[in-house]
Amino acid sequence: MKAKVYVTLKEGVLDPQGQAVARALGRLGFSEVQDARIGKYIEVQLADDVKDVEGHLKQMCEKLLANTVIEEYRYEIVK
Amino acid sequence: MKAKVYVTLKEGVLDPQGQAVARALGRLGFSEVQDARIGKYIEVQLADDVKDVEGHLKQMCEKLLANTVIEEYRYEIVK
Repeated sequence: MKAKVYVTLKEGVLDPQGQAVARALGRLGFSEVQDARIGKYIEVQLADDVKDVEGHLKQMCEKLLANTVIEEYRYEIVK
Repeated sequence: MKAKVYVTLKEGVLDPQGQAVARALGRLGFSEVQDARIGKYIEVQLADDVKDVEGHLKQMCEKLLANTVIEEYRYEIVK
């Protein structure tokens, strides 16, 4: 089975990379762009016979995939 | 309005960062992890009065957000 994990910066945390992207899009002529924020998208392939996938995914995020001081995460499980 | 853009490596393109994450998860005890692939998740805030949002987003991806030689993208528009 597969899990899709989305890691984003918490609201209020500065995102210089996102600001650079927003400005670059503006310079390219996309004047409608007001802001951009960059996060991570992680696809994790898992063995099918895992018990408590939800619990494991939460731990993976807390321990490795996200820095919970400045980032938040969400995940979805795809069969 | 807001657009969510997902940029992922094309199938067949090596992802050393993803492999490192998969191995690290294994070492942390998550033996069910078989593979991981890392992509980007970009939230773009757009002015509400844009015409042809779809077309503009496609161009933004092609020109800046994705490297279409090795990456593919998809987006969804959130009101």
